Order: sequence, then structure tokens, then C-alpha cells
Amino acid sequence: MKFVRFDNISDLNAGKKDTMLQKKEGGVTAAKGFKAACCAAEIKYKNRTDMAMVYSETPCECAGTFTSNVVKAACVQWDQKIVYSGKPMQAVVCNSGIANACTGQEGWDACESTAKAVESELGVSYESVAVASTGVIGMQLPVEKLVNGVSAMSKTLSDSIEAGTAASKAIMTTDTINKEIAVTFDIDGKTVTLGGMSKGSGMIHPNMCTMLGFLTTDLSIEKKLLQEALSEVVKDTFNMITVDGDTSTNDTLLIMANGLAGNTKITERNEAYKEFYDALFCVCRFLARTMAGDGEGATKLFEAKVINAKSKDDARTLSRAIVGSNLSKAAIYGCDANFGRFLCAMGYSGAQFDQNDVELFFESDAGRMQVFDHGTPLSFDEELAKKILAAAEVTVFVDMHEGEAEATAWGCDLTYDYVKINADYRS
Amino acid sequence: MKFVRFDNISDLNAGKKDTMLQKKEGGVTAAKGFKAACCAAEIKYKNRTDMAMVYSETPCECAGTFTSNVVKAACVQWDQKIVYSGKPMQAVVCNSGIANACTGQEGWDACESTAKAVESELGVSYESVAVASTGVIGMQLPVEKLVNGVSAMSKTLSDSIEAGTAASKAIMTTDTINKEIAVTFDIDGKTVTLGGMSKGSGMIHPNMCTMLGFLTTDLSIEKKLLQEALSEVVKDTFNMITVDGDTSTNDTLLIMANGLAGNTKITERNEAYKEFYDALFCVCRFLARTMAGDGEGATKLFEAKVINAKSKDDARTLSRAIVGSNLSKAAIYGCDANFGRFLCAMGYSGAQFDQNDVELFFESDAGRMQVFDHGTPLSFDEELAKKILAAAEVTVFVDMHEGEAEATAWGCDLTYDYVKINADYRS
Repeated sequence: MKFVRFDNISDLNAGKKDTMLQKKEGGVTAAKGFKAACCAAEIKYKNRTDMAMVYSETPCECAGTFTSNVVKAACVQWDQKIVYSGKPMQAVVCNSGIANACTGQEGWDACESTAKAVESELGVSYESVAVASTGVIGMQLPVEKLVNGVSAMSKTLSDSIEAGTAASKAIMTTDTINKEIAVTFDIDGKTVTLGGMSKGSGMIHPNMCTMLGFLTTDLSIEKKLLQEALSEVVKDTFNMITVDGDTSTNDTLLIMANGLAGNTKITERNEAYKEFYDALFCVCRFLARTMAGDGEGATKLFEAKVINAKSKDDARTLSRAIVGSNLSKAAIYGCDANFGRFLCAMGYSGAQFDQNDVELFFESDAGRMQVFDHGTPLSFDEELAKKILAAAEVTVFVDMHEGEAEATAWGCDLTYDYVKINADYRS
Repeated sequence: MKFVRFDNISDLNAGKKDTMLQKKEGGVTAAKGFKAACCAAEIKYKNRTDMAMVYSETPCECAGTFTSNVVKAACVQWDQKIVYSGKPMQAVVCNSGIANACTGQEGWDACESTAKAVESELGVSYESVAVASTGVIGMQLPVEKLVNGVSAMSKTLSDSIEAGTAASKAIMTTDTINKEIAVTFDIDGKTVTLGGMSKGSGMIHPNMCTMLGFLTTDLSIEKKLLQEALSEVVKDTFNMITVDGDTSTNDTLLIMANGLAGNTKITERNEAYKEFYDALFCVCRFLARTMAGDGEGATKLFEAKVINAKSKDDARTLSRAIVGSNLSKAAIYGCDANFGRFLCAMGYSGAQFDQNDVELFFESDAGRMQVFDHGTPLSFDEELAKKILAAAEVTVFVDMHEGEAEATAWGCDLTYDYVKINADYRS
């Protein structure tokens, strides 16, 4: 059973004191003025939904982070143009099955046709319509099916919880569960809602972004601050997960803020900004962590927490190296307390440290155990170690004893099923 | 059947014109004055040999490259001390089963005890005895068994071909085949021999080094030039292979040159140096390529050749990214011509390029096929693609059309067996 602790509000609020953050049912349709729809357009999959649309009744300030991959999908380039233009965003159309990456001019034209279909159906400028794709790289999108899908979805847009949930299912590829969340918090006595959905299971090693993630909020906030908050939060959430070390061509995280909550517009880094920032952090952390635990073929969530590192960069680098190592991931799958592999991964991460300073522990709901103490291996109870590592969420906890910085990274185990899924993904 | 072309002398001489290079039977004992032995010391494995010794009748100039991992095994630190001291080397003792990494002072003491056992048996200074270990990290070596092993091997040292081959088998861990080679070339009318052995199958992503490799030659050469040649050659051989992206704590490549061939000592970068350099390149390339093809769980060798890149660094980075990607490796296993994954890996490699310049081909003994042409996917014959990818050696060939640099990297496919081997490697 995956994600035992994920729906726990105390986990959601971890690290926050006296928080006002409340969990709310739903996802992208939870905030005021947002609607969603989905349809089965048969882009590549049969017998399932494969297109989703998120729409705001009013134009939104928007922000986004995108893949650092030099080979950017056409839709990433399309969305960057909108986000960087400073113009508002009002809708996002997403398809699964085909990624629209490595598709040349024809790929760009498919983005434009999709956005123009929304314009003709809903009367919003095509330059305010983001598009996103996920699936096989190097195949062209069937434009007519996309346009028909937009037409069908435009007629069924709904602000219901169910519409948001259905959208989060339509964007899945090899994901085994849909990922959505919504929270509320108070600003100026107004209740603000922030919701979101994401997908991602393979080709996950985000760098400045995630796979696909769409966040909606009725907060009123300046575009510049919205982007700053998003860019900062991804560093410790989406950028701290890895499934296979492969940074996708399509990674896109978008947030739309329509201001319908009625709060005084946030224009500086005040208390209200702080409230929003914390909510954004919690939402992004939840989605990122869920993606890691639902990595292709995964049987468990694999977390690495590094404390007392020399710098924040070192802490991030070390924790990411641990969860990114194929050998560590295979050991976690086999419940093998082969702690040398974790130290080895830290050693080649690029961070400088002295192994004689390091303590290393295994942790889970089943217990906690130290296995390495300042350069020396400890003898330990192999049976207890197996029990700890057999849990649904396993943490490797490392005390560097070299400073005060800390970071947490998330991944999953490496299993037969990962290979199976990826040996013939296209078929 | 793996390594179809590996024993082909024309492959060994690839890129060389009018070469004098000849293949010779054997490995570390092929050069004059070198002997080897092995024994079953029961370090960790039962019912197989697990210790090897290579010994030169006379003291040798030596050079070495070592892991860039911050967490260095005790034996790596021991060997670095010898290589960097400028003193001669006369013997190497190697064990498999336990890596002597993350073992603190006790690990260092084990190196010293082993070297001193050689001194007392063979009368050479313990400071001229290198040690190397490979196996599980974080376990202490049984020193008494090591010392008994040294004693047994000292009595059975032999310069026979068989003794060299037996040594190359004793250092194997998850390797499925032993790796050894020897070549001869002429300098000053003297026949010089260069031989070597290596091991490595998992935790392979060398950086400034390989897993374990031991080279022996009867060449007479200055230490400084020996080190320069070795350091240069590894950049395009051992540093261009990857099995799983994990850079080991124990990577060590040593070369010993005892001068018994009788050539005029090489003290500058003259023609004789060039002859030696080419031989060294061929030997290292053979061993590196064989290691990649024998990667844990591998069913085939996966080669990436990048031509017309902007710089040598770019060419190396791009080719390594292709063979290092889990998703590419899984596609190669599944014979799936999912070329987008290779472009994706190039895109996140760190090299800058424009996808609209790129051409990508699949190649093997079964044929050649272009799948991507200057930014646009080509339609192709899926059946022929399957045949090409089903070969024992598969090449992804990329023309960047941006410059004149080229590089080749080697890896293997990602299979169920990789996961199986590594989910319970310790047991």
C-alpha cells in the first residue's frame, strides 16, 4: 500500500507552526472560477480519456517553470512564450499519449491549432491558451482529433470536484494513480484556495521544473511574485525527486491565479505572501512526493534526508544522489541494508566531505537503525533492517556533522517492472 | 553471443594505419619478467578463487588512475600513496568479495598487513606492493585469510599464460567473463609486450579511472610519460563506459613497466612513445568495451558514436548521456526504436545544440537506418528496426552537423537481471 501518510494533514503542514492551512476536497477546480473537462480523443490510447482542459472564467496572472532539457517539446516552447510575454493565461489544454517533442514545425503548428480551437469555442485569445503534451517522443499529434477534443470539452466544462478529478486521470500515462490536491488558507479574512494536479512516472529527474503540473488559485497576486514563489518552491519540491535520472523534454509546471478570492492583491513579500508561499510549498511537495512514490514499477517511496551539511546546495546534491543511484534503488527494492551504496553515491555526487564525519541511519514506520558511524561500519540486526526496509516509505537519514544545512529528496525503488514498462513503452 | 568482433585484430587496430600492433595470447603474464598466481582464500566467496597476485622480477616504473569518488576505499588511498611517491612498484595483490571501502583505520591496516606479507614472502619492500579490493562496501577484510593467501600465492607464481588467465578469473565478482588481452609492438627493433586484465560489471561509471585494471609491460619508459599516456588514454576508453551511472569507491587502473624489453628508455614524446600510446589505447579500449558489454544483466553491447560535434567535450558528453540513460538502455533491451529517448538524453546532457541540426541513425551487423533528420522524425520500417536492435552490438550514430569533434561511448542494455543481481547482491 503506497502513500500511507500522504493524506495526513499533519504531514501536509510538516515544518509549519500554528498553520491555518486546511485540506480541501478536489484539485484544479477547487479554487473559485476554475472549471475542467476531459474527453477520449483517441490521440494514441483507446478506451480511456486522454485530453483535459482547465479553464478560468476570468484571465489569470500566470507563472511557469519548464524543462532545462535543450531538446524542448513544441508545447514547452509555446507555453514559455505565453508565460514570458507577461500576458494573461486563461486555459490549458493537455493530452496524453504523444509528447509532441522532436516534431519540428509540424509540432509547433499543432500547438497553434489547438489554442485557436479554444479561441473559436470559448472566445478567449489563442495567445492565452497554454498547451501541454506527454507520451511518446518523436511522433506527430493528430491535429483533427485535438480540435474535435477541444470542441467536446468546451461543451462539458464544469467546476465540480469530479470534473477536476477526471481531468487529473486523463493526463496520466504510466502513472498508476492520479495526483491531485487542494488546500485553503486565509488572507485578509478572505479564504483563498489553491489546487493542483500533476502526472509523471517515468523520465523523471526534474531540473527547474517537473513533468506536467497545473496549479490553480483564486488568489490575487502580482505576476512577478507569483513566478518568484513558484521558482523558489520547485527547488525543494519537484526538483528534489527522481525516478530514473532522465530529465524529460516536456516538463512543465504552470500556475494560474485569477484573483476571485477577493484578497488585497499581493505586491510585496509580506505576511500574505508568506501564507501563500507555505501553501504552495505544501501542495508542490505533496504532488512531487506522490509522483516519486508512483515512479514506474515502484513498490515503495524512497526518501533521503541529509542534515548538517555544509551548504544547502550540498544537502540537495547529496540527498538527490542517494535516491538517484540505480544500485541504491535496487537495494531498497530488495530490502538489502547495503549501506555502502548510499555512501558511494554521496561520494560521487560532486559534494566534498570527509567520510569520517558521517553517520547514516535507516528509518521507516517499522523502526530506526544506525549502520555507519563516523567512518566505521556498525554491526546491526539484519532481521530488523529487513523489516525497516520492507515498509511502504523508507528513509535514509544522513548526518554530515559539517554544517547546518538540510534537504530531502524523493525517489522510488528500481524493480523488474521498471524494465518491463520501458522495454516496450511505445507498443 | 557477446563480443563478436572483440577478438578481431582489425578491430583492435581500428583507426591505425600501417600498424605494427600484433595480438598475443595471454594477459598480465605476457610481458617479460611478469608472473601471476591466484588462490581460493575464502574472503567471502566459497568454492572459487578470490585472490590474485601480479609480480615483476624487477622493480617497475608505475602509473595509476583512481576513482574520483570522495569516498575512496582504503586500498585506493594505499595505491595512490605508492604511485604519487615516485617509488617503484613490484607487485599487486587483489581480492574479490569485499571492497575494503568505508572501513576506517581497520581497512587501512588490512592493506598494510597484506603488503607486509608480500615483503616477508618475496623480499620486496612493502612500500612497492599495491593492493586492490572489489566487492561489498562497508565490510572488514579477514586479515588472516589475506596473509595466508599471500603465502600460498608466493609459492605458486608463474609466468605461464595460464597463470595470467587464472588471475583474471580470481578478480571477477558479478562479471560473467574474464577480461584479458596482450599485444606486441616494435621499438628500436625490440619487441615490446603490453598485457592487462580488468574486472567490472556493476557500479560502473568511471570518472578518471575504471573499476579494477592491471596492465603490465616490459617497456622501458620514464614514470612521468607513463602516467601521462595512461591519463590521456583513459579519457577515451575507461572513462567512456557506463553500466549504471554509479562511480565506484574502488576504481583503480595500474600499469607497471619493468623495462625488460631492452628498448632505449622513452623519455620524450617521440615515435616510440607514439607506438606505445597507440598500443595502450587499443588495450584499454578492448578492456573497457568488454566491461561495458559484460555489464550486470546485459544482453548486448550498446555503443553511441557522435560525430561533427562542436568540441571533444561535447562529443564525449553527448555519447555518454545516450548510453547512460536508463530509458535508452531499456529501449535497447526491448529492441524498441524509441529514438526520442536518445535525443532526450542528449538534451539533458549539459551540451548545447539545436535539434534542427541533428541526424540520428541505428546501426548494427543487421543494417543501418536513419530515424531523425534535422529536427523531424522519419517514418521507418519497424521490422528492420527490430532486427537492427536485436544484434549483439548496437550503435546509435549521431551526426551533430555543428563541428568536427567525435567520441564513442559504450554501455549495455538495462534488463530484469540487472535488478535481480542488485536487489540482493550482498547475499
